[in-house]
Amino acid sequence: MTESSPTAAVLIIGDEILSGRTQDTNLNTLARFLGALGIDLLEARTVGDRKAQIVDSLNALRNGHDYVFTTGGIGPTHDDITADAVATAFGIELPEHPEALQILERRYGVEFNAPRRRMARIPEGGTLIANPVTDAPGFQIGNVFVMAGVPKIMTAMLEDVAPRLKTGAVVHARTVRVTGVGEGDVADILTAAARTSRTLSFGSYPFGHGSVGEIGTHLVVRGRDGQEVDAAVVALLADLEAAGIEATTI
Amino acid sequence: MTESSPTAAVLIIGDEILSGRTQDTNLNTLARFLGALGIDLLEARTVGDRKAQIVDSLNALRNGHDYVFTTGGIGPTHDDITADAVATAFGIELPEHPEALQILERRYGVEFNAPRRRMARIPEGGTLIANPVTDAPGFQIGNVFVMAGVPKIMTAMLEDVAPRLKTGAVVHARTVRVTGVGEGDVADILTAAARTSRTLSFGSYPFGHGSVGEIGTHLVVRGRDGQEVDAAVVALLADLEAAGIEATTI
Repeated sequence: MTESSPTAAVLIIGDEILSGRTQDTNLNTLARFLGALGIDLLEARTVGDRKAQIVDSLNALRNGHDYVFTTGGIGPTHDDITADAVATAFGIELPEHPEALQILERRYGVEFNAPRRRMARIPEGGTLIANPVTDAPGFQIGNVFVMAGVPKIMTAMLEDVAPRLKTGAVVHARTVRVTGVGEGDVADILTAAARTSRTLSFGSYPFGHGSVGEIGTHLVVRGRDGQEVDAAVVALLADLEAAGIEATTI
Repeated sequence: MTESSPTAAVLIIGDEILSGRTQDTNLNTLARFLGALGIDLLEARTVGDRKAQIVDSLNALRNGHDYVFTTGGIGPTHDDITADAVATAFGIELPEHPEALQILERRYGVEFNAPRRRMARIPEGGTLIANPVTDAPGFQIGNVFVMAGVPKIMTAMLEDVAPRLKTGAVVHARTVRVTGVGEGDVADILTAAARTSRTLSFGSYPFGHGSVGEIGTHLVVRGRDGQEVDAAVVALLADLEAAGIEATTI
């Protein structure tokens, strides 16, 4: 929204998302997390467990954004190839990280075997991201944060990621609920409102869709200046009232 | 999975997804829909309501896949810019489509205004995709299918999309549920199984994660030859049993 806000992209890795076996929720978690930090999430990609595709996507995203967050593919099995792909994307080695090795040895004891040892491989120069759920760490290399795909673990890892990020001014969002009319009935008012400001964004999200029950639309005003957002909401409510359209803030 | 299967990509369009306001479910719906038709969904991207970003992403995806499915941005408000972006991506005009105009006039009657008229603009040569929920159509242009973002409408539009698609051999998936041990304990067995076939894929999806209750992992065998999948599952169960690991098909 402003030039000075950090930007971010998300890379979701896993055949299970593209096959439909799993409904991804990590993107939404990351979107809310980044929003709260004032970081603009501008793009997300979902790719399968294919190394070349991960490498290409990661290189496109890390060169275009301040931060990239990946989820998935850091477990012990043969289809967990994210660390390998990240090392290839950066053109660096993937040695065992002494601290990661310690963490995993402590966790698994006599059950620490070769597959689990794979999880200690961290791209050269990377730092660990703590995993308070199952211990096996994620890692940061450059502007890329590599996290688990299991939502509970991914979410827990964000605790260790947050302090490392530059933050921006938080985006304030307020919603005006319009009832009894459709999106098309408020579109002109919304367009006029949007023209009054270059720093605010105005979205419209209909509900009801002609089925039984109430119809209407949610108008969302977003901006980094809370007072500007508030003033725009007041003006929008006045415009809607003047047109005889029922609306309230929610 | 085989060279002859059609491939697809999904382009999710909407600030509300990237801001975290809305949890996308359309990708999962599309993934299951395409899977049932034997079409390989290889990639998805999520972008905001920014024309240049939509144009660039669409051109990258439509040149790389047999089909592209977009969701979002085809309503009547100023932030609905998908049709404009698609026309720009193809380098073609965006005239009013006579049939779309008829449909919308019939739907809205005296409430058919200028914003709603925007929804009749279809890239030159495009064909309509029926919307049995709110009438306002989606459209197909070349190998790109442009659909609504509201999940109920998007899902309904797939009825009109399905007959237009080349199908492939359906991928069969069977799941082996391993309990009492973690992913790392079955990784070697799974890797060995994966090495026996170039046409099957083997995934591992842990559950439990060291919290209270049962731990284990789901091993998913996928392939286009159902008998080959079945045989691989039988072999996998035997290997797990030989290693003293509890496993059943689910």
